[in-house]
Amino acid sequence: MTQARSIAFIGLGIMGLPMATNLVRAGHRVSGYNLTPEPIQKLAAEGGRAATSIADAVRGADTVITMVPDSPDVEAALLAEDGVYAHAEPGALVIDMSTIRPDVARAVAAAGHEKGFRVLDAPVSGGEAGAIEAKLSIMVGGDPEVFAEAEPLFRVLGTTPVHVGPSGAGQTVKAANQLIVAGNIQLVAEALVFLEAHGVDTEAGLKVLNGGLAGSTVLTRKGDAMRARGFEPGFRIALHDKDMKIVTTAAREAGVAIPLGALVAQFVGALKAQGHGGLDHSALLKIVEQLSTKEG
Amino acid sequence: MTQARSIAFIGLGIMGLPMATNLVRAGHRVSGYNLTPEPIQKLAAEGGRAATSIADAVRGADTVITMVPDSPDVEAALLAEDGVYAHAEPGALVIDMSTIRPDVARAVAAAGHEKGFRVLDAPVSGGEAGAIEAKLSIMVGGDPEVFAEAEPLFRVLGTTPVHVGPSGAGQTVKAANQLIVAGNIQLVAEALVFLEAHGVDTEAGLKVLNGGLAGSTVLTRKGDAMRARGFEPGFRIALHDKDMKIVTTAAREAGVAIPLGALVAQFVGALKAQGHGGLDHSALLKIVEQLSTKEG
Amino acid sequence: MTQARSIAFIGLGIMGLPMATNLVRAGHRVSGYNLTPEPIQKLAAEGGRAATSIADAVRGADTVITMVPDSPDVEAALLAEDGVYAHAEPGALVIDMSTIRPDVARAVAAAGHEKGFRVLDAPVSGGEAGAIEAKLSIMVGGDPEVFAEAEPLFRVLGTTPVHVGPSGAGQTVKAANQLIVAGNIQLVAEALVFLEAHGVDTEAGLKVLNGGLAGSTVLTRKGDAMRARGFEPGFRIALHDKDMKIVTTAAREAGVAIPLGALVAQFVGALKAQGHGGLDHSALLKIVEQLSTKEG
Amino acid sequence: MTQARSIAFIGLGIMGLPMATNLVRAGHRVSGYNLTPEPIQKLAAEGGRAATSIADAVRGADTVITMVPDSPDVEAALLAEDGVYAHAEPGALVIDMSTIRPDVARAVAAAGHEKGFRVLDAPVSGGEAGAIEAKLSIMVGGDPEVFAEAEPLFRVLGTTPVHVGPSGAGQTVKAANQLIVAGNIQLVAEALVFLEAHGVDTEAGLKVLNGGLAGSTVLTRKGDAMRARGFEPGFRIALHDKDMKIVTTAAREAGVAIPLGALVAQFVGALKAQGHGGLDHSALLKIVEQLSTKEG
Repeated sequence: MTQARSIAFIGLGIMGLPMATNLVRAGHRVSGYNLTPEPIQKLAAEGGRAATSIADAVRGADTVITMVPDSPDVEAALLAEDGVYAHAEPGALVIDMSTIRPDVARAVAAAGHEKGFRVLDAPVSGGEAGAIEAKLSIMVGGDPEVFAEAEPLFRVLGTTPVHVGPSGAGQTVKAANQLIVAGNIQLVAEALVFLEAHGVDTEAGLKVLNGGLAGSTVLTRKGDAMRARGFEPGFRIALHDKDMKIVTTAAREAGVAIPLGALVAQFVGALKAQGHGGLDHSALLKIVEQLSTKEG
Repeated sequence: MTQARSIAFIGLGIMGLPMATNLVRAGHRVSGYNLTPEPIQKLAAEGGRAATSIADAVRGADTVITMVPDSPDVEAALLAEDGVYAHAEPGALVIDMSTIRPDVARAVAAAGHEKGFRVLDAPVSGGEAGAIEAKLSIMVGGDPEVFAEAEPLFRVLGTTPVHVGPSGAGQTVKAANQLIVAGNIQLVAEALVFLEAHGVDTEAGLKVLNGGLAGSTVLTRKGDAMRARGFEPGFRIALHDKDMKIVTTAAREAGVAIPLGALVAQFVGALKAQGHGGLDHSALLKIVEQLSTKEG
Repeated sequence: MTQARSIAFIGLGIMGLPMATNLVRAGHRVSGYNLTPEPIQKLAAEGGRAATSIADAVRGADTVITMVPDSPDVEAALLAEDGVYAHAEPGALVIDMSTIRPDVARAVAAAGHEKGFRVLDAPVSGGEAGAIEAKLSIMVGGDPEVFAEAEPLFRVLGTTPVHVGPSGAGQTVKAANQLIVAGNIQLVAEALVFLEAHGVDTEAGLKVLNGGLAGSTVLTRKGDAMRARGFEPGFRIALHDKDMKIVTTAAREAGVAIPLGALVAQFVGALKAQGHGGLDHSALLKIVEQLSTKEG
Repeated sequence: MTQARSIAFIGLGIMGLPMATNLVRAGHRVSGYNLTPEPIQKLAAEGGRAATSIADAVRGADTVITMVPDSPDVEAALLAEDGVYAHAEPGALVIDMSTIRPDVARAVAAAGHEKGFRVLDAPVSGGEAGAIEAKLSIMVGGDPEVFAEAEPLFRVLGTTPVHVGPSGAGQTVKAANQLIVAGNIQLVAEALVFLEAHGVDTEAGLKVLNGGLAGSTVLTRKGDAMRARGFEPGFRIALHDKDMKIVTTAAREAGVAIPLGALVAQFVGALKAQGHGGLDHSALLKIVEQLSTKEG
C-alpha cells in the first residue's frame, strides 16, 4: 500500500463516488462532499467521512480532489468564498480530475499557486467502468515533482497515469482524446452502415477490420454494440457534446484547424438536439442511418 | 505444410513479389508473370518458374492469383484475349487479391463463374511489411466452400483470413478499411498538431491517448513517425487516393452517407495534387499543418 | 428572325420539348425524336416533324441538338450504330445540350471532329421554367467560330449564351454551377433553421439578408418556398445528385479540392437515399432539420 | 431631412467615423468619442463635437449609438461605471450597431431596459464602402415602436433597415449573414479554382454563372477580384473569424446543425492562423489553392 493520506473528495457523482471509494479501500482517510447528500452517505458506509461543506471536507486534508461536471463547477468549487482555496490547509495538494477547458485549468492552477497550493489538472478516460474497476487513464498537467508525489494516488484510481506537461496539459490531452474518440466512432458508424448496405457479414467484417490498420479500441469495445444498436451508456452524448465544444474552442484559440473534429462535433450536437443526449456516444450511428435510409 | 498446389501468380510488384515468394517457401509450385521482367527473375531465383505470359503462367496451374494495381488491370488480366479466363485450366481456382471496386469484383467473378472457374476476391491489408512477414489481413468474398479450400493458402500469406460474404464482399470490407484508416490518420494528425500548439509533451500524450478509448493501430504504428515527420511509405498517398475514390463511389451506389469519409478523401486528394503522392498516408499531417500555421 | 435552319432535336423530355417548340415557333424546321412517342406527337402538333428514329430525324438536317439525361445517353445517341454520327449529313453542326461529364463531352466532340462534324457542348441552367420561357443560361464549349454560327439558335432558347472555352468547357462551367447552387441552398437552409430556432421574423430576415453581401438568386427564387417547406420541383434532387457526382469526379481528376462541395454532395445523396429524389433541391432544408430537431 | 436629434456616437473606427459623419451631414448634432483621439478630431472637423469621455459624449443626447469591435467592448461601453448606462439621459434611445453575440445583445438590452432606456441591436452589412456611401443593410432587433422611432436615423446610414424581431434578433440575422457570406465565398473559390484547372475562360464563366441560379452578390462584388487574386480588404478575415465563432456558438446553443458553416469556419480560422487575418475574406481562395496545387 502507498503511504496513507488525508483526502478531501469534492464531487461524488457517477465517476467521483467509485473513485473516492477506491481511495478508502486503499487505506486512505477520505472525507467526501457533494451537492446532494445521498452519495455522501454511500461513501460514509464504505468507511469515508461525511462532510457537511467544502470547508468541512478540506479541514485537515493534505490532498483535495475535485471531480465535478464542467468548468464553472470547478471555478465555483475552488475559487468561491466557501470554496477549497479559502479553506484548505496551507500548501495542500489540489487535484482537479474533472474534464474542463484547458484555459480554465491554467487559470485555477495559477490562482492556487498564488495562494501557496500545489495544483494538478488530471482528467481521466475510461468511463464509469474504468472508475469502478480502477482502470482509468489519467492525463496529468502541472509540476513534475508534484506529479511524482501524487502518482501513488493515481495508481489507486487507474492503470495509466501519465505526466504530459505543465498546467492545463492534462486537459489539452483529454480534449484531444475526445476529438479522436468521437471521430473514430463516426468513422466506424460510416463503415458499418456501408457494409450493411452491401450485404456484408458485419461480424466477420468488423473482426477483420480490427485485425488490421483500421483496428481501434472503439472497434473492440463498441463494435458489437453498434452492430446490435445497443446505445445504453457508457459515455453520454450530452457530455461528449460539452467536450467537443471544449476541443473546438481550444483548437481555435491555438490557431489549429480540426476540420474532421469540427464536422463530427456538428453530428454530436445534432444527436443532442434530437433528444438523444442520454444515449452512448456510439449512437452517432443513428446520424449515419438518418442520412442513408428511406424514411419508414 | 499445407498440401502443395500449382499456382500462377500474376503481378509481382511491391506486394506481389514477397507474397509469391512466401508461397514458394511454403512448398508450392509457383509460376510468376509480371509486365516488367525484373521481379520475374527474382521469383525464379527463389525457386519459382519464370513465365513469359499469362497464358504460359496459368498452364497446368490449379490456382491463379492476381495482384495488380487497379480495376482496369484486373479486367485486363482476367478478361482479355490473352488473359486468365481464356487460358487457365478448366475449373481453376482464381483469386484476385488486388484492391479494386466492389462492382468490378462482382462482375469479374460472374464472368469467371460462367466459364466454370471458382473465383474469390481477397484484398489484403498490412502493407509491404505485412506481405514480407506474412502477416497480412485478408478479407475474402465468394463461395464459403471455395474459401475453405483456399484458406490454407491464405494462411501462408497472412494471419487473419476472414470470409466476409459473397463475391465483392472482400472488396467492400477493404473499402471500409481504407475509409477508417484515412479518417483515423487525419484525426490523429489534428490531435497531434493541436497538442503541439499547446506545448504538450506529445510522446507522453500519444502514449496515454493510445491507452484509452482513443487507442488505435494507427497510433501504435504511425504515432511516433508522425511526431518525427517521417513520411516514407508504408502505404502511399497515391494508392490511398485511388481507394478513397472506390469507397466514396461504392457508398454513393449503396445510398450511404459518409460525410467524414468524403471530407478526408478531399484531403488525401489534396496531398496528391500537391505532389505528395509518393509519401506515406500519414502525411495527412501536412494538410493539418498547412491549415494551422503561419507561412514561413 | 434568325436565318431558318433545319434542325434535328433528339430528346424531347421536360426540357427538350419546350426548347424544340421554341425553335419551331422561331421559324426553324425541326424534326423531333424521343424514346417514347408522346412528346414527338406534341412537337408535331406545334408544327415540327415527327421522326421515327435518330437516322430519320437527322436526314437533311444542317443542325442536330441532343438533350438527354446522362453521359451514357449522349454516348448512345451520338456514337451508336443507329446514332447521329453514323447518319447525320456531312459537316453538320452537332450541339449536345445535356448535362454530362466534361471528359465525355471532350470525347464525343473529338469523335465527331474526326468524322468532319462541328461539335459544341452547350448545357443549360434555368430549369423547366427557363426552357418554356426561353430564358435559359447557356454555357458553351468548342470552337469560337462554331459558337458564333450557333449563337442565333441559342438566343431563341435563352438569354445568356456564353462561350467559355474549348470542348468540354461548357460542361465544366455547368458542373461549377451545380456545385455553387447546391452549396448555396444548403447555406440558406442552415441559416433559415438557425433563424427559426432563435425566433427571428424570417420573412424580414431573409429580405435583409438578400439585400446585402449574402444576397443570391437562390434566396430570391427559393427563399419563400423554403420558409413554407414547398419542395415541389423545380430541379429534382435525383438530377442534382447525378450532377454532384459529375463535379466531384471532375474536380478529383483536375486535382482540385472542393471540401464544401464534397460535403454538400453527401447531403444531396442522403436526400436521394431517403427517397426524396423527386423533391426540389431546396429540400436540403430537410437534412438541416433532421440534424437539428427532436424526433416527433 | 428627418427631425434633428442629439446623438452621442461611441466608437469612431473604420465603420463608425463615416457613419457619424453621415449623421452630421444629415443635420444631426453628433458628439463623438473614441479610445484614440485622431478620429474624434476628424469628426469635429466635419462639424461634430469632440467628447472627452463617454460621460461627456452622452450628456444631453437623446440618442446613443455604439459601434465597437466585439462583445466585451459593448459590455464595457454600456455597463461599466464610466459607461453609457451610468451617464446617459433618462429614457435615452440606445442603439448598438456593433456585431456581437446575440446572447450578449439580449443581456445588455435587458440591463438597459431595467434602467429605463430604450435599446435596439442594429448590426450592419456592407463594409467600409457601405458606411461611406450610406448604403448599409441594417438588421434591427428590439421593440417595434422603438424601431419606428429610430428608422429615420437608420435611413441616413443605409438603404435597407429591417426590423427582424425582439432584442438580439438583429445580431442573429447578422450571424446568419456571415455564415452565408463565408460559405458562398468558399463555394465561389472552389468553383473558380476548378474552372481554372480545366482551362476554362473564367471571365466568361463567372459571368454566365452569375446569370443563373448560381448568381450572388458575392460573385458580383468579389468575382473579378478573386480571379485577379486581389485580396485587399474589404472585410478582413480576422473579423470574419470572430463572426464565425459567434454563429457557430449561437447555432450550438440553439441546437441547430450547420455542417457547411462549421467547415468553412475552420478554413477562415486557418487563414487567420496562417497570418492572413488582414486580407479580405475572399482570400479563402488561398485555402482552395493550397489544397489543390503543387508546392512551388
